[in-house]
Amino acid sequence: MSNDTTMRAVHQDTLGEPDVLAVVDLPRPTPRTNEVLVRVEAASVNPTDWKHRENGGFLGTPPFVLGWDLSGVVEEVGIGVARFSPGDEVFGMLSYPFGHGAHAEYVAAPAAWFAPKPASLDHVQAAALPLVSLTAWQALVEYADIQPGQRVLIHAAAGGVGHVAVQIAKARGAYVIGTASAGKHDFLRELGVDEAIDYHDVDIAEAVSDVDAVLDTIGGQTSLDSLRTLRPGGIVVSILPVGSGDFFREAEELGVRAVRMLVDSSRHDLVSITELVEQGALRATIAEVFPLEQAAEAHRRGQTGRTAGKMVLTTG
Amino acid sequence: MSNDTTMRAVHQDTLGEPDVLAVVDLPRPTPRTNEVLVRVEAASVNPTDWKHRENGGFLGTPPFVLGWDLSGVVEEVGIGVARFSPGDEVFGMLSYPFGHGAHAEYVAAPAAWFAPKPASLDHVQAAALPLVSLTAWQALVEYADIQPGQRVLIHAAAGGVGHVAVQIAKARGAYVIGTASAGKHDFLRELGVDEAIDYHDVDIAEAVSDVDAVLDTIGGQTSLDSLRTLRPGGIVVSILPVGSGDFFREAEELGVRAVRMLVDSSRHDLVSITELVEQGALRATIAEVFPLEQAAEAHRRGQTGRTAGKMVLTTG
Repeated sequence: MSNDTTMRAVHQDTLGEPDVLAVVDLPRPTPRTNEVLVRVEAASVNPTDWKHRENGGFLGTPPFVLGWDLSGVVEEVGIGVARFSPGDEVFGMLSYPFGHGAHAEYVAAPAAWFAPKPASLDHVQAAALPLVSLTAWQALVEYADIQPGQRVLIHAAAGGVGHVAVQIAKARGAYVIGTASAGKHDFLRELGVDEAIDYHDVDIAEAVSDVDAVLDTIGGQTSLDSLRTLRPGGIVVSILPVGSGDFFREAEELGVRAVRMLVDSSRHDLVSITELVEQGALRATIAEVFPLEQAAEAHRRGQTGRTAGKMVLTTG
Repeated sequence: MSNDTTMRAVHQDTLGEPDVLAVVDLPRPTPRTNEVLVRVEAASVNPTDWKHRENGGFLGTPPFVLGWDLSGVVEEVGIGVARFSPGDEVFGMLSYPFGHGAHAEYVAAPAAWFAPKPASLDHVQAAALPLVSLTAWQALVEYADIQPGQRVLIHAAAGGVGHVAVQIAKARGAYVIGTASAGKHDFLRELGVDEAIDYHDVDIAEAVSDVDAVLDTIGGQTSLDSLRTLRPGGIVVSILPVGSGDFFREAEELGVRAVRMLVDSSRHDLVSITELVEQGALRATIAEVFPLEQAAEAHRRGQTGRTAGKMVLTTG
């Protein structure tokens, strides 16, 4: 049990399988100047969580608490915070990658990383959005600047980032081609995908052409193959390691653009995302919800790759 | 002299008078994931710098390197940074207050804190803008949401934040009342102030009334007095300590709004500010420019309160 000065958090002191995760009591953080203390109601589990759990990724050696996006209630505000007051419902993403720690009962973080929770969403639905929707928004809108009628290819379109990206691309009037295993094609069509492709079956560069923008959520060889689907001047935005320098070199040779990006915390973008939500144009699909204590199980299930949509933890 | 692994920085290991500042060689930072390494061409000196130099402020005990806003050239990008490439000219504000360290030859910081330098400004002009213009923008536009024809009172309108706030308020069509000592009233009129008031002479709450929004850059008693200039429902946005809880309590009694804010790093807001600059509606007035080595002198001059506009350091 936590008391007023501690909190429960999903902690690990070694890298490895899901069972390295354990709920422990840690000191409850206090908000510094320009920070809010948020009581986490729900936090999502993203592929980056299980990758970091296994290999340390950007964070290196444990101990650490994973988790980047969350929805909750402002408990306390630091000096200079005027956007929020205690009791306000907020959602947001801790700065990626070094701001991690959302898989806990409380986070203290800059107020600038949060926006008001969309009124039409509960905390579980809201917690599922920030990391994936900021990623998709920044890739498709800020980098690719997709326009109505453009052909947009979204890899792993049934995944966390993918299924949100499909909705954003459709809301902007794009023609959307999504890849997923055949069993998820019904889900893709429900999301509004115009063309569903089973990437097991085809060479993507042969199956798809004249694309304006690719959201590459896979990396490696997929990044390279994606370049060959583009029209001249088209763009691949990759959110995962693109392998070698070949990605950028080949893009130059082909006369297309190649971007490797990571997501930024941005309350401005969260506001744009909230508008889409309130228009009924965007929802995260919730695959499963687990209490904090079952974080290991959430990792296991997510990691199978067989879930469609998001895994969410609740603190309740 | 610095070499490839070091840099010059304005350092202090004790609190006190300007002569605690010394240029020393420190390790050159390296950009982490999602960060850029920026070669600083110019960085501004703000009142918060000399306050922190004297009393430690939000930062506590030295050693530290002060400085929050800068203009420079991207030297190197970390993993996942796609907004910028080496050679790009950028300006921005390090996260306030804990991201300090701009009074140096290099900073490594999240790419999200930077935007392209306005093309029409040189590095000195650009470095003078971020902290003051983000503060003024967030106060007047985001919190007060000032509208054409509204009456806006700006305290210390010839100061760093004030003189930029006047221009932003005028660009949005407001009627601007500025306070400053009489010797600076010509400067206020050049900025476009509609009414200049010498705060030595008057009780502001008697001299000014029916105000829609006040930008309070002074704090304490001024915050309280400002409340009594407002129309019902008007707002005081204060960027300095407002003294006691009386500020908020009295606002409630008067039926007006009281906000105490600190500035956020926001590339979105920098883009809005750049639009004003490129329209010719906004410039920082440069009071004096000093090399990094004369940071102490820049503090001394700024601290006299007799300068109008900004003090800027250059690394050149």
